[in-house]
Amino acid sequence: MVKTIETTHDKSDIIIQLLNAQKARQFREEYLDLHVYEQAQIFTDLTEKQRARLYRYLTAEEVGDMFDAIEEEPEEVVNYFKEMTPQYAANVIDQMYTDNAVDILAYAQKKDLAKYLRLIPQEKAAEIREMLHYEDKTAGAIMSTEFVEIVGNQTVRSAMHVIKREADDAETIYYVYVIGSNEKLRGVLTLRDLLTHDDDEMIEDIMTTPVMSVQVSDDQAEVAQTIRDYNFLAIPVTDYDGRLIGIITVDDIIDVIDEESAEDYSGLAGVDTDEETNSPLKAAVNRLPWLIVLLLLGMSTTTLISHYESMIGEASILAIFISSITGTAGNAGTQSLAVAVRRLAEKEEDQPSWYKQFLTEFFTGLLTGFVTGLTICLIVGIWKQNFVLGFVIGMAMMCAITVANLAGSFIPNLMDRIGVDPAVASGPFISTLSDLTSVLIYFNIAKLFMQFLMGK
Amino acid sequence: MVKTIETTHDKSDIIIQLLNAQKARQFREEYLDLHVYEQAQIFTDLTEKQRARLYRYLTAEEVGDMFDAIEEEPEEVVNYFKEMTPQYAANVIDQMYTDNAVDILAYAQKKDLAKYLRLIPQEKAAEIREMLHYEDKTAGAIMSTEFVEIVGNQTVRSAMHVIKREADDAETIYYVYVIGSNEKLRGVLTLRDLLTHDDDEMIEDIMTTPVMSVQVSDDQAEVAQTIRDYNFLAIPVTDYDGRLIGIITVDDIIDVIDEESAEDYSGLAGVDTDEETNSPLKAAVNRLPWLIVLLLLGMSTTTLISHYESMIGEASILAIFISSITGTAGNAGTQSLAVAVRRLAEKEEDQPSWYKQFLTEFFTGLLTGFVTGLTICLIVGIWKQNFVLGFVIGMAMMCAITVANLAGSFIPNLMDRIGVDPAVASGPFISTLSDLTSVLIYFNIAKLFMQFLMGK
Repeated sequence: MVKTIETTHDKSDIIIQLLNAQKARQFREEYLDLHVYEQAQIFTDLTEKQRARLYRYLTAEEVGDMFDAIEEEPEEVVNYFKEMTPQYAANVIDQMYTDNAVDILAYAQKKDLAKYLRLIPQEKAAEIREMLHYEDKTAGAIMSTEFVEIVGNQTVRSAMHVIKREADDAETIYYVYVIGSNEKLRGVLTLRDLLTHDDDEMIEDIMTTPVMSVQVSDDQAEVAQTIRDYNFLAIPVTDYDGRLIGIITVDDIIDVIDEESAEDYSGLAGVDTDEETNSPLKAAVNRLPWLIVLLLLGMSTTTLISHYESMIGEASILAIFISSITGTAGNAGTQSLAVAVRRLAEKEEDQPSWYKQFLTEFFTGLLTGFVTGLTICLIVGIWKQNFVLGFVIGMAMMCAITVANLAGSFIPNLMDRIGVDPAVASGPFISTLSDLTSVLIYFNIAKLFMQFLMGK
Repeated sequence: MVKTIETTHDKSDIIIQLLNAQKARQFREEYLDLHVYEQAQIFTDLTEKQRARLYRYLTAEEVGDMFDAIEEEPEEVVNYFKEMTPQYAANVIDQMYTDNAVDILAYAQKKDLAKYLRLIPQEKAAEIREMLHYEDKTAGAIMSTEFVEIVGNQTVRSAMHVIKREADDAETIYYVYVIGSNEKLRGVLTLRDLLTHDDDEMIEDIMTTPVMSVQVSDDQAEVAQTIRDYNFLAIPVTDYDGRLIGIITVDDIIDVIDEESAEDYSGLAGVDTDEETNSPLKAAVNRLPWLIVLLLLGMSTTTLISHYESMIGEASILAIFISSITGTAGNAGTQSLAVAVRRLAEKEEDQPSWYKQFLTEFFTGLLTGFVTGLTICLIVGIWKQNFVLGFVIGMAMMCAITVANLAGSFIPNLMDRIGVDPAVASGPFISTLSDLTSVLIYFNIAKLFMQFLMGK
């Protein structure tokens, strides 16, 4: 029988009933039969009372495995530890992979953290303490310290023994790392390599070297790109002396890719799209800051337009096309911005230089501006039977699109250079800048032709 | 020594020099020492003449492994086959993983395809033929047919023999699948499971069952979500009778996640952001269609505004705030759209109902609209010393934001329901609809207060 996601969901009701009915043995049987991800899904739906019962029915090891798969925000997961006895919580933390435990403990109160760390075996506690110091979004912050290490002068047979012994604790056993003196990373072997070589061969004869690795302070996005390009299942992390201190596995990288793309998308939309709330109040609080900032930035455009109020009073037809010009230039700017942001995110070596990208955008702007401007010129000319007006609007649109394209490529590159994430803040700057320049260009071109426009 | 990406890049110059100097043996040594991803990076930079030489120096098997790692668009890779003798091309294709070969052959001309398939071993040719029929973006289109299958009534020892034998060809050996009669999928075992059990244990006693699997016609985005949630390295693909026909590995899924998020981002920005060109002409061709469509859609707003031209003539101050109102409502609509698109993409079970989401957006719109409206009312009231005008603009903004929020949540849900990808086409609809309603609301509210506005 093939298991589908639906059958799992039917099961969750039965399991919760068993918990309510205090049938400990049956509950354990059914619950532990599920994949940890499914266990976690059920767990996060429980009430506090049900959770208290679950902690009694399951061992800290079982709960720890399940906590590795929880998808709630760490600042919420940390509260579960407070519901447990300190020793039970410490055991749960001890069972979890260090990277996952650290994510959550980063949100614990100082005194709780100290309490847990005292109750956790010393070695693990030291690892947690160290990892808590790595900066967010670096290799150090997402790495796991549970990996298999072997040495060069052992045989394939003895390496296989090490792997079997550590199979239960290591995050992956499919890559094993060869270390030399001082824990220096020397080589790597896949389990596939080990299986296809004779038992008596020496590790240093068959290991892959040099090893592709990342440094503990590397940006998580770069690590993700490397794993993606090379189709690795894991990559080793070294400190500044080339010592192996952790690994990053592909499942952590998928979360990174997801997080980064959600950020890009959110940046363009001006909202945290992972807003999980169904409360209009919380949603409003999430969205209002950007809306107000954009409104205030937009007021600069409004102020600029108001300088031309007398011109509008004389030729009200001009007002009709403001939004068409600012809108189209804004669209062009967003296109150019999106292309630039994606290129920056990919960080590939063979990218055209900054200067060249800028030049490309300039000519792209001129070309798209010319075609779009010609289109609107014809439409307005025919619609309003006034080709002077059509020409003014067409010219304004062409200039505005060219400027917007330049801004769309210039601003994210500038932000990247000064160390600000271009995805987050570029959007509103582009649209404000492009609105301002569009209005300026439009009314100044219109001014030149005012006598012809008035005549109409 | 830890290898970094930079040292690889230095090497590529040396390797190309060896190729130019016709030093076949040394070229082979240096080139094949690189990771296939790096080999592919160098390959795609070669000239046609250099490539011809490379085909002579390397075996079809070596080129096939490298082609598995090529990141160029398949429609371009297919042209390389034309540079080879048909038999050599067939051997390269035979060596590649079926899923990768199929991606490329989908772009081959009919007569070329027939030629290659005739020269490829029958079994593989049949697989390729079948996979060419799977719809794009389904599990069938991205699956690989190189997996390890064992049966239930064999021992761990004999299963390990099967794995070792197939280690060179299978896409992954870290998951092995247990099949029953008629190739039906019965269970799964990780290599970790096998290593931690006694050699004499029977597979059916230790296999994990039931197996989480996907059907050949399932959407690739759903497959990606499952692999991500469960942290799998691979997932089996079954046909409608539950027969195992392929697997999808995590590296293919990373590409899917990347592709899907790029699509969402591109949809919001109205441009294919993976545009890799540095030619302004090509970039313009890529961007113009959306720009023109958006311009034409925007003309409906312009037409609507032109209906109120006489009102603007009487009170030109009204014109100044059009872009502020349409802009802010557009921003609110984009926020609401982005949240809805992300929710649809996640396809989680515990999502609020359609109706409830709609209600949440309505109240979110009212709340954000009220705060934003109040802000602009105060700004305009103080700036222009005219609180009636402030009230008109504030009211209009509040109504316009509420409507935009509703549209932003309604349209993507509707599109999803009728089977159109909401990420691709929603953006322009939202902004057009929100512009139109904003203008309509604004001028109708203004009309009610016209006598007070004229007084100013």
